Amino acid sequence: MDCIKLAHGGGGSKMQNLINDIFVRNFGNEILNAMEDAAKLSGNLAFTTDSFTVKPIFFPGGDIGRLAVCGTVNDLSMRGAKPLYMSSAFIIEEGFPMEELDRIAASMAEALKEANIIIVTGDTKVVEKGSVDKIFINTAGIGVIADGIDISIKNAKPGDMVIVSGNIGDHGMAVMMAREEFDFKGKILSDIAPLNNLVKDILALGGDIRVLRDPTRGGVSETLYEIANMSGVGVEIYEEKLPVASGVKGMCDILGLDYLHLANEGKLIAVVKRESADKAVELMKKNKYGENAAVIGEINDSGLVTIKTAYGTSRILDRPSGELLPRIC
Amino acid sequence: MDCIKLAHGGGGSKMQNLINDIFVRNFGNEILNAMEDAAKLSGNLAFTTDSFTVKPIFFPGGDIGRLAVCGTVNDLSMRGAKPLYMSSAFIIEEGFPMEELDRIAASMAEALKEANIIIVTGDTKVVEKGSVDKIFINTAGIGVIADGIDISIKNAKPGDMVIVSGNIGDHGMAVMMAREEFDFKGKILSDIAPLNNLVKDILALGGDIRVLRDPTRGGVSETLYEIANMSGVGVEIYEEKLPVASGVKGMCDILGLDYLHLANEGKLIAVVKRESADKAVELMKKNKYGENAAVIGEINDSGLVTIKTAYGTSRILDRPSGELLPRIC
Repeated sequence: MDCIKLAHGGGGSKMQNLINDIFVRNFGNEILNAMEDAAKLSGNLAFTTDSFTVKPIFFPGGDIGRLAVCGTVNDLSMRGAKPLYMSSAFIIEEGFPMEELDRIAASMAEALKEANIIIVTGDTKVVEKGSVDKIFINTAGIGVIADGIDISIKNAKPGDMVIVSGNIGDHGMAVMMAREEFDFKGKILSDIAPLNNLVKDILALGGDIRVLRDPTRGGVSETLYEIANMSGVGVEIYEEKLPVASGVKGMCDILGLDYLHLANEGKLIAVVKRESADKAVELMKKNKYGENAAVIGEINDSGLVTIKTAYGTSRILDRPSGELLPRIC
Repeated sequence: MDCIKLAHGGGGSKMQNLINDIFVRNFGNEILNAMEDAAKLSGNLAFTTDSFTVKPIFFPGGDIGRLAVCGTVNDLSMRGAKPLYMSSAFIIEEGFPMEELDRIAASMAEALKEANIIIVTGDTKVVEKGSVDKIFINTAGIGVIADGIDISIKNAKPGDMVIVSGNIGDHGMAVMMAREEFDFKGKILSDIAPLNNLVKDILALGGDIRVLRDPTRGGVSETLYEIANMSGVGVEIYEEKLPVASGVKGMCDILGLDYLHLANEGKLIAVVKRESADKAVELMKKNKYGENAAVIGEINDSGLVTIKTAYGTSRILDRPSGELLPRIC
C-alpha cells in the first residue's frame, strides 16, 4: 500500500509531489497554489505556518523554541512582509520536564524580542508517553506588506543576480553533529536567526529585490530549483563564490554530503536586479546576519540549474529528492 | 522533578496554571493575556490556533480533519469574527497510509466548503515511526470582526441568561466509545460542526450577545467557570433544562461520568441580555446546528458556579481539574 515516507517531508521533489497530489488537489485555491513561503491576503497581509519537530530539541547554536519563532518570522520576511503577530501551539509528551519547557519558552521570548513580534494566541496539548517525541511546536504568523513591495518566487528574470546572505549549511551540520550517531566534539553552531531586519535593510532597493527565499529543508539547491521552476528561468551558480565555513566543508567531505543540500535557518537567497546586486551585498554586510553575503550566481533563460566549478566546467546541480536528514527543523 | 502530566492538557485548572506559569510569564502581552478563544488584533482582525491530536483519528461522526477545520472556525466565531483564511500544518508518522491522508484532506475540504473558508498556507513534516502517533494537525485562522461587535469572555453581567446551542457531551462520548477500551456498539455521533453561520444568525441581536464560548476540553462546566472568573460574576444553571441525548446520559450513568465535563465540538455557550434570551434561542432553533438550543441558566453576582438540581437544591458545580480523557481533540 502507498504510504508516507520520510522523504515526503524532506523538502525536495517528493514533498512537492505529496503537496500537489493531496493538499493542492483537496484544498486548492489561487492563494495556496502560489506556493510562496507566506500567503498574500487581501489588505496586504501575509500569513504563514510551520510545525517544528527538530531532533534533538537543544543543539549547538539554538533550540526548538528559537527555531519556531525564527522560522515563521523568516517565512513572512521572504514575502517582504513586516512580521507583527504570532501564534504558538505546543504538543508535549507526558513526563516532559517542566524546566526544559521553561527554557524553550524563554528562548522563544528572546527571539520574539529580537524580531520585535509578539505571540498573541496559543494552544497546549499533552499526549501520552510515546505518542510524540518530547515536544513539537507550531507557529503561525501574520505580517503586513508595505505598498509597492512585490517579492515573489515567480519574479526572477534572466540577467538578475543571485545572492546568499552568508555561510551555507551551518544549521543542517550543527543538528547532524548533535545527533548521537555523530559523536564529534564539533564547534559548528546553527545559524538560526530572525531575518526581518536584514530584509528591511535591503528593501531600501525597492523593486530591484525580486525574490527572497530562505533555504531551509532541501538547502540552497532546492531553493534554486524552486526559483527556476516558479519563475520559468535557469540559474547558474559559481562554486568558488559560495561562502561555506571550513568546518562545515570539512565535515561534508568526511561524510560525503553536499553542503548545498544542508538546511539553513538564518540565511536567505535573494534574486536582485543586476545593477543593484553589489549594493544589496553591501547593505547585507552591514547587518550582523549578512556579514558573509556574496553574489553566488545569476539567472539565465536556460531552464536549468547549473553550477560552474572552479575548473570552469558547468554541470547540472543535484536536486535533493528526499530525506537528507529527517527532523532538521 | 516537576514534569508535564496529562492533566496539564485537559482544559481544566491545571492547564490554566501551566499557561500562566510558563507561557504568560514568558510571552505575556495585553492581547495574549486576555485569554480569549481568538486574539483581537488591530484592524478588527481575529487570530487563533489549535493543534489536533485526537485518538482515534476516525470516529463516529467525524475525524481529525473535520475537527481541525471546525475547531479553528469556531474559535474565531466565538469572538464574533467571520472566518476568512486558514493555515494547516501536518505532522505525519512515517508509514502512514496515503489513502487515509487523502480521506482526512477530503474531510477537511468538505468542512472548509461548509464554513466558507479557504486554506491559504501550509506545512508538512514527516517524522520517524514511533515519533508521533499517526498524524497531528495544526490549524490557525484569521477572521474579521464587524464594526460594533464586542464579544468577550469578560462581558457577562448579573441578570444575563446562559444559553447552550444543543445537546451536551456528544463529542466526548463518541470519541470515548470509539476507543478500544470501550467496546460498545454505540450510535453516539460526534457533534463536530462549524458554528460560524449559527453565530452570524444570533449576531442579529447585536450588543445583546455578550459572551460566546465553545465548550470543548473541560466541557460546559469548565466554560462556565471561565466565564465566571473572567467576567467576575456567578453562574447558576438548572439541571432539568440541560439538553442531553439519552444515550449520552445513559453512558454517563454507566461509566460514572458527568456530561458537563465532556467535550463538545459543535456547540456554543452564549451569555445573552435577559430580554433577548428567548429571541436568541428562537434564532438558534432555525439553524440545523441549534435545533436543541435552550436557556440553561443565568448570571448572578455570587462569584460561584452552581447547579440547581431537579429537587430544587443548589450545589457548587464540579470543575474539571485535569484529564477526563486525553486526546479528545
